[in-house]
Amino acid sequence: MASRYHLQKKEREIKDPNELLAIIKRGKFLTIALCRNNAPYIVTLSYGYDEKRNVFYFHSRQKGLKGEFLKSNPNVCATIIEDRGYIMDECAHEFRSVVIWGRMCFVEEMEEKKRAMDVLLCHLEDNPDKIKRESLSNDAVYRHLAMLRLDVTEINGKWGR
Amino acid sequence: MASRYHLQKKEREIKDPNELLAIIKRGKFLTIALCRNNAPYIVTLSYGYDEKRNVFYFHSRQKGLKGEFLKSNPNVCATIIEDRGYIMDECAHEFRSVVIWGRMCFVEEMEEKKRAMDVLLCHLEDNPDKIKRESLSNDAVYRHLAMLRLDVTEINGKWGR
Repeated sequence: MASRYHLQKKEREIKDPNELLAIIKRGKFLTIALCRNNAPYIVTLSYGYDEKRNVFYFHSRQKGLKGEFLKSNPNVCATIIEDRGYIMDECAHEFRSVVIWGRMCFVEEMEEKKRAMDVLLCHLEDNPDKIKRESLSNDAVYRHLAMLRLDVTEINGKWGR
Repeated sequence: MASRYHLQKKEREIKDPNELLAIIKRGKFLTIALCRNNAPYIVTLSYGYDEKRNVFYFHSRQKGLKGEFLKSNPNVCATIIEDRGYIMDECAHEFRSVVIWGRMCFVEEMEEKKRAMDVLLCHLEDNPDKIKRESLSNDAVYRHLAMLRLDVTEINGKWGR
């Protein structure tokens, strides 16, 4: 939504969904703003993006401050930054960025946990099957594995310098 | 505070203040979690760090969603990520990260605006005097310039893979 984005002179909104998707696919991690009782918190996590379902998956621990925040308030705002470097003598930093609004929760079902891990490994790894064969060959592994899902409600992007 | 940080096996807390400072000095931008009426928001900004005063300075617009959030709730949680790259076949991403808690506000006084811009340019630019000479040679420029200050209450760091 344009109203959520107050672009500066040096910035431009990315309107092309394919360009947004390309940034998401190139990215490896995103930074998430959480809040609880009006107190902010921030975490950075490796992600996998499920394009068909428009959700992000993350590997996580069951316990921890992030989980406590999410139980209190599942609404999050996350960002992926494609850093193209600072431009000396021009007081400018070249970047592409994506901002995502949505709700985040733990994945409960075994089948979705498996799919989530598959999405994550396929996003991050050049050869995901190798890790799957070596580390995820039986269901017991998944029982101790916590996965998070971010259901996207809105995505915006901009580039700037 | 250790209680705020739930480190995973692959992560280690950075306890050495000089190491934290080095990451802050190497960084060019940080990502800030804001919240208003328990709704999260996220922005990424170039920064300058004033080591003596333990504050971060940013160039900003007076108007915009970020300012509205800060007026409603000045408490922020920010992070600097030093991305050292994904390690293929190991399902691991090497990084250093700093998390900062504090309060953020607009700089009102002309003298502090000048100092803030000086801190920002000295942090970002190899030759800050050139830009100062060319673009900031008179006070009128500063009157239309909005600067933000983040007063740090706590900084933590970790490295991981």
